[in-house]
Amino acid sequence: MKKKVVLAYSGGLDTSVTIQWLIDEGFDVIAVCLDVGEGNDLEGTYKKALDMGAIDCYIIDATLEYANEFVSYTIYGNSMYEDKYPLVSALSRPLISKKLVEIAHETNADYVAHGCTGKGNDQVRFEVAIKALDPSIKVIAPVREWTWSREEEIDYAIKHNIPVPIDHDSPYSIDQNLWGRSCECGILENPWETPPEDAFELTKNPIDAEDTPEELTLSFNSGLPVAINGTEYPLEQLILSLNDIAGKHGIGRIDHVENRLIGIKSREVYETPAAKVILTAKRDLETITLTKDIMHFKPIIEQKYTEQIYNGLWYSPLSDVLRNTLKDLQQPVTGEVKVQLYKGNVTVLGRKSENSLYNEALATYTSEDAFDQAASVGFIEIFGLPTKVKSMLDNKITVEKLK
Amino acid sequence: MKKKVVLAYSGGLDTSVTIQWLIDEGFDVIAVCLDVGEGNDLEGTYKKALDMGAIDCYIIDATLEYANEFVSYTIYGNSMYEDKYPLVSALSRPLISKKLVEIAHETNADYVAHGCTGKGNDQVRFEVAIKALDPSIKVIAPVREWTWSREEEIDYAIKHNIPVPIDHDSPYSIDQNLWGRSCECGILENPWETPPEDAFELTKNPIDAEDTPEELTLSFNSGLPVAINGTEYPLEQLILSLNDIAGKHGIGRIDHVENRLIGIKSREVYETPAAKVILTAKRDLETITLTKDIMHFKPIIEQKYTEQIYNGLWYSPLSDVLRNTLKDLQQPVTGEVKVQLYKGNVTVLGRKSENSLYNEALATYTSEDAFDQAASVGFIEIFGLPTKVKSMLDNKITVEKLK
Amino acid sequence: MKKKVVLAYSGGLDTSVTIQWLIDEGFDVIAVCLDVGEGNDLEGTYKKALDMGAIDCYIIDATLEYANEFVSYTIYGNSMYEDKYPLVSALSRPLISKKLVEIAHETNADYVAHGCTGKGNDQVRFEVAIKALDPSIKVIAPVREWTWSREEEIDYAIKHNIPVPIDHDSPYSIDQNLWGRSCECGILENPWETPPEDAFELTKNPIDAEDTPEELTLSFNSGLPVAINGTEYPLEQLILSLNDIAGKHGIGRIDHVENRLIGIKSREVYETPAAKVILTAKRDLETITLTKDIMHFKPIIEQKYTEQIYNGLWYSPLSDVLRNTLKDLQQPVTGEVKVQLYKGNVTVLGRKSENSLYNEALATYTSEDAFDQAASVGFIEIFGLPTKVKSMLDNKITVEKLK
Amino acid sequence: MKKKVVLAYSGGLDTSVTIQWLIDEGFDVIAVCLDVGEGNDLEGTYKKALDMGAIDCYIIDATLEYANEFVSYTIYGNSMYEDKYPLVSALSRPLISKKLVEIAHETNADYVAHGCTGKGNDQVRFEVAIKALDPSIKVIAPVREWTWSREEEIDYAIKHNIPVPIDHDSPYSIDQNLWGRSCECGILENPWETPPEDAFELTKNPIDAEDTPEELTLSFNSGLPVAINGTEYPLEQLILSLNDIAGKHGIGRIDHVENRLIGIKSREVYETPAAKVILTAKRDLETITLTKDIMHFKPIIEQKYTEQIYNGLWYSPLSDVLRNTLKDLQQPVTGEVKVQLYKGNVTVLGRKSENSLYNEALATYTSEDAFDQAASVGFIEIFGLPTKVKSMLDNKITVEKLK
Repeated sequence: MKKKVVLAYSGGLDTSVTIQWLIDEGFDVIAVCLDVGEGNDLEGTYKKALDMGAIDCYIIDATLEYANEFVSYTIYGNSMYEDKYPLVSALSRPLISKKLVEIAHETNADYVAHGCTGKGNDQVRFEVAIKALDPSIKVIAPVREWTWSREEEIDYAIKHNIPVPIDHDSPYSIDQNLWGRSCECGILENPWETPPEDAFELTKNPIDAEDTPEELTLSFNSGLPVAINGTEYPLEQLILSLNDIAGKHGIGRIDHVENRLIGIKSREVYETPAAKVILTAKRDLETITLTKDIMHFKPIIEQKYTEQIYNGLWYSPLSDVLRNTLKDLQQPVTGEVKVQLYKGNVTVLGRKSENSLYNEALATYTSEDAFDQAASVGFIEIFGLPTKVKSMLDNKITVEKLK
Repeated sequence: MKKKVVLAYSGGLDTSVTIQWLIDEGFDVIAVCLDVGEGNDLEGTYKKALDMGAIDCYIIDATLEYANEFVSYTIYGNSMYEDKYPLVSALSRPLISKKLVEIAHETNADYVAHGCTGKGNDQVRFEVAIKALDPSIKVIAPVREWTWSREEEIDYAIKHNIPVPIDHDSPYSIDQNLWGRSCECGILENPWETPPEDAFELTKNPIDAEDTPEELTLSFNSGLPVAINGTEYPLEQLILSLNDIAGKHGIGRIDHVENRLIGIKSREVYETPAAKVILTAKRDLETITLTKDIMHFKPIIEQKYTEQIYNGLWYSPLSDVLRNTLKDLQQPVTGEVKVQLYKGNVTVLGRKSENSLYNEALATYTSEDAFDQAASVGFIEIFGLPTKVKSMLDNKITVEKLK
Repeated sequence: MKKKVVLAYSGGLDTSVTIQWLIDEGFDVIAVCLDVGEGNDLEGTYKKALDMGAIDCYIIDATLEYANEFVSYTIYGNSMYEDKYPLVSALSRPLISKKLVEIAHETNADYVAHGCTGKGNDQVRFEVAIKALDPSIKVIAPVREWTWSREEEIDYAIKHNIPVPIDHDSPYSIDQNLWGRSCECGILENPWETPPEDAFELTKNPIDAEDTPEELTLSFNSGLPVAINGTEYPLEQLILSLNDIAGKHGIGRIDHVENRLIGIKSREVYETPAAKVILTAKRDLETITLTKDIMHFKPIIEQKYTEQIYNGLWYSPLSDVLRNTLKDLQQPVTGEVKVQLYKGNVTVLGRKSENSLYNEALATYTSEDAFDQAASVGFIEIFGLPTKVKSMLDNKITVEKLK
Repeated sequence: MKKKVVLAYSGGLDTSVTIQWLIDEGFDVIAVCLDVGEGNDLEGTYKKALDMGAIDCYIIDATLEYANEFVSYTIYGNSMYEDKYPLVSALSRPLISKKLVEIAHETNADYVAHGCTGKGNDQVRFEVAIKALDPSIKVIAPVREWTWSREEEIDYAIKHNIPVPIDHDSPYSIDQNLWGRSCECGILENPWETPPEDAFELTKNPIDAEDTPEELTLSFNSGLPVAINGTEYPLEQLILSLNDIAGKHGIGRIDHVENRLIGIKSREVYETPAAKVILTAKRDLETITLTKDIMHFKPIIEQKYTEQIYNGLWYSPLSDVLRNTLKDLQQPVTGEVKVQLYKGNVTVLGRKSENSLYNEALATYTSEDAFDQAASVGFIEIFGLPTKVKSMLDNKITVEKLK
């Protein structure tokens, strides 16, 4: 019986060549094509996989699952790798891995293959996730193995009648899903060079964006966005809609030299219009609904969770626990945030919540003030006591002398 | 002999009334008026203090010291309280306190007075700092003590011929220095209300800002900005200049509901145009000059240091050590950052450094690639081993079976 | 109608005097006497409260609730304030506060009173917990208010026929419950002085302890101890039993100069024999059942949770969330730990678990070794890459030159 | 010209075989034998290296440098990997690497070799450190490369007339230096088995240790131990002396299942008598000399630094900065600690310091009390305010209603 391999198939040149290469290596290839919100041409890809020689092709629209089971936690956790990158590709890899393993089990395949190179993060994310789900599955990384130059790959494609796309000389390497789009390579490899406009697709340059500001009211329920201007949407629809609206206002461009898991720095350009709006608004809503001790402690949990996901450790006991923790911490984050979108800016204009801990009677400087200012005297005495004791030591002054 | 008190004097209504009140309480009042970059009318204030009955008035331009000994560390540390507020007032209080204590020592005064209310952070910052410098000094907080309403205060002023400024019914409470401007009270006390334009002074509304983007190249030397477009400036001049340039582009507005040290949430509006540009550029320069382990660890130190300063603990052994640590960590942050200023946005266009750890030969996907992709196989095997072992346990699969 | 106050009553001098003092202040006093595992004479205390003039006395054995709802989380969290103090008193205060508030509600009392002084942590813990449960309850702290010296208090007691215990001149201030015993004051106030033997009650001096080592096997189930030598016990019984066994072996003495919440350092002596054995064994069991990333991250959560409880913030959203997190993290901590008790030492002799992640086939250096040593080469190459890149920069060596 | 390799040579079987193996591979071998406090027979090793065929052998007693430049920082940092392991081997590797690189430079050798296997931490530590010092040096790991079983290695040794030590069938793998001794393998590979007595060498079993307790006074100067019972010693002498004294009292045995850098858990037995005494005493001295905020923050820095060193990142910008930070934090840790050594226990009996922040006048409950208990009322009001506001929200009670 021939060996069977389940391949993550995108329809692009790399994975099309991969099908042939795997056939050459003696495999029956089962292609799997997922949509996680990037709007793939699933039917075309299905046909192409079979044309390339795959014995079967699974077509899966996983957008809903991606939004609810993956993106949602990144919203709870305000996940931003190195404070800049909202985990676009890192977030889809564990879901794709899960589907690949499920199909491997269904089809009794012992192998799973992905199209990543040997110097990116995604190879790690795929392989660690797959092993986490089933340690007995063998993983093949053809692109890492064949070590061809771009030219050699195209020669191989032509030789095997694999269609070479007209943009095969595009300088960029792109990944896209519901939560955003990443772009690297080409001129971007020089971090002193300004990213050219053709590196962007979801967003306008702020300079060319709408001249009229747009106000939106976003409603949140326990940390997740549920409505725009009072109209409720399922999460994936709300994100798609905001990607569109905010993109027109030039919002969500990120230019980041990031530290990859595999030890190098790389320069990436991201576009995450919806993410930018949602996270800006939600973090603002947190300021009135979360206690100070939560506000000051949770960044540590958020950073750790973000690193786990960036590093491909979605399926791990620590990530599982942190997901619950992040979700629990968001329970009171319910309310409305008024934002203005304008030429690259998301400006919060106002925020309100039934769970608001902002207490105007305590905060006001008007005659309505209910704060007991006399209490501050005792507070300062005790809060400052360690400092005073240290100072007494330095100045050789005793308590008695201070009385 | 009469008791002597050194008073932090601004020339405004509160501290003018305070002089009289202290005289009523039997004190000789020595006024101290500091400029920390806000451009105070020092001569006018001097004259006014004496008019109000102060026996002496010290006039000090501390802008240089403020820039070099205080603002610099906030730049090293990327200090942003709750990720939003770049420590405007919190930063000047320890310097003012130091000057007050020095003058108290010079004049043999046993008392120091400040004009803060009993519900803000600044009372804590002044009193803790003063005690840290000399625990035997007695601190008086007249505004906290007299517990008058605004009307009662004005009545008192009129009765004592203290000039009531024409904007005495301004709804806002303002503080300003080299590093920015804060504004609170009035309609801002309702966090759902959009801040009105009269709450701002240093910045234009992005909508009304310049229509033409402006490109700047900022040069940094070990973490501090030293030149704009190749022209070197002393730090305080560079900041003043950037406040002006960036303000015209609508950059640096912050609307923040923050957790005060004294237990309440308050809504503050800040304007920090120079800080926004400097910290955005410098944090970007860090991405190519700092190692990954530093990038991932230093946020913890930065957050701790920021909280120390926000909480008035400038003069403390921990703050002293953290200042050195933050400065040491910035040693390699030397280089140039190209930024574009446009309608509220500071966009980094490029960055370069002689200390750059970005290695194009390792990062590139071209044929120049020097990265050993085969090494990734071993890396993933070992990096993913804990996950695999956990999965083997869950799936009851032995190592032997996997061979 | 007379004002009603619910008083935390221990039967000791301070709280007996407090009853009379509250009556003098015009209150009807409802005494509440709780046992949280210290083995109080509840009947005697009941009678005494009424003798002292209380209009009623509630007697509550809360040991079970204390073990299951309070001590359990301190075990999950390995809670040790400043790495030394396992939260003895800090842990009972929130439970006592809860009972006081419940009885205040039942009896329509507007006031609650406690017997703490004005310089300890417990006043804070009581008052913050009570306000967290019902912000409208008014708290009275008679001992803090009356500001009597010890002599004045005894005079007052004698005058009001309040029995003065024969050990009223004991130098120590003691608190005790299921989880341990604290002792302060007297000669202990000098941190250079060796704690005298009369400061201890639950433990023998190691020098005088049993000469024969004792081996125990402790079984844990998801983080909690459930059996000794195979015999199952409810948590509170298991703790009481271990207090007895370990105390005889001189285990669990702690001598700690700690940083109080209220700004001073104080020297405390604790005895926590069961806690010492349970936490030592459980932390060891964690080493084989928890993943490395959990082991390295959870100390941060543990420290935060411990500080929350030490600081009296049991009833707070952050503490609630952290409790769940700590419990979740302990889910796999099931198994057995063999310990030896001997003259102050708890030595782990062995540990095993069905959830063990220790994999002998991977760890062994025998011919059974299943670890792929060749993978290390790739791992080291990539793990060490950032260091190498930095070194190349420092030594001005290019990638090409290294090939 | 023949290739030259500098080999870390211990005189044991593995590195003796390595010399021959390297000669077989065509190298001229320069042996380097370091003493870092373990008391090696340097002369015998010198002779043996040449007998084995090395063209030269460098003999270096680096104990002093090891104590002053390496161990000292581990004392400053209270370094304990996973709270248990005081970095014995991890600490010597960077120093040995430095010497190897220096000698490679002196002798114009392009290669450095070490005797580590492919599954331990030390291979990483050596290779990362060597690359950090000179990225152009090539590292060879013969034991990892030859992949022989123990039997095959001995056959090779016999064939090449390499003396096989009589204890070559010792089940244990040992490493030792000034700061302690590690032991692994053999029966220790089963974590349920009690470590047999022959696994220990520096310490007595507490049961067999001295029956008479011994009191010592240790003096510290800015974090480092400088005297025992008033007699000053250089650091390395003081450590050697304490290893001897404390070992006789059964102090410093550690049994640890630890998480290696290379992804597995391994069970290790350590003996660190001096480390145990020094760190116990010094941590106690910190309680009176360091402020609360330092005490509560520095564990995070200590943990990070310890992980850096454990992971072989001694030579890195982050480690450099953290070393300074840890040293700075120890500046006030000067004073004396009285300890009792008895059958496995190090008990602190008392501590004192000219820098003590413990203030008896503030701490005392006698009539000397100088603490302002009234201040606590205001402190609790404000410290508890966030909790009260949350509770008011939950209970729908307004501020006004509470007045």
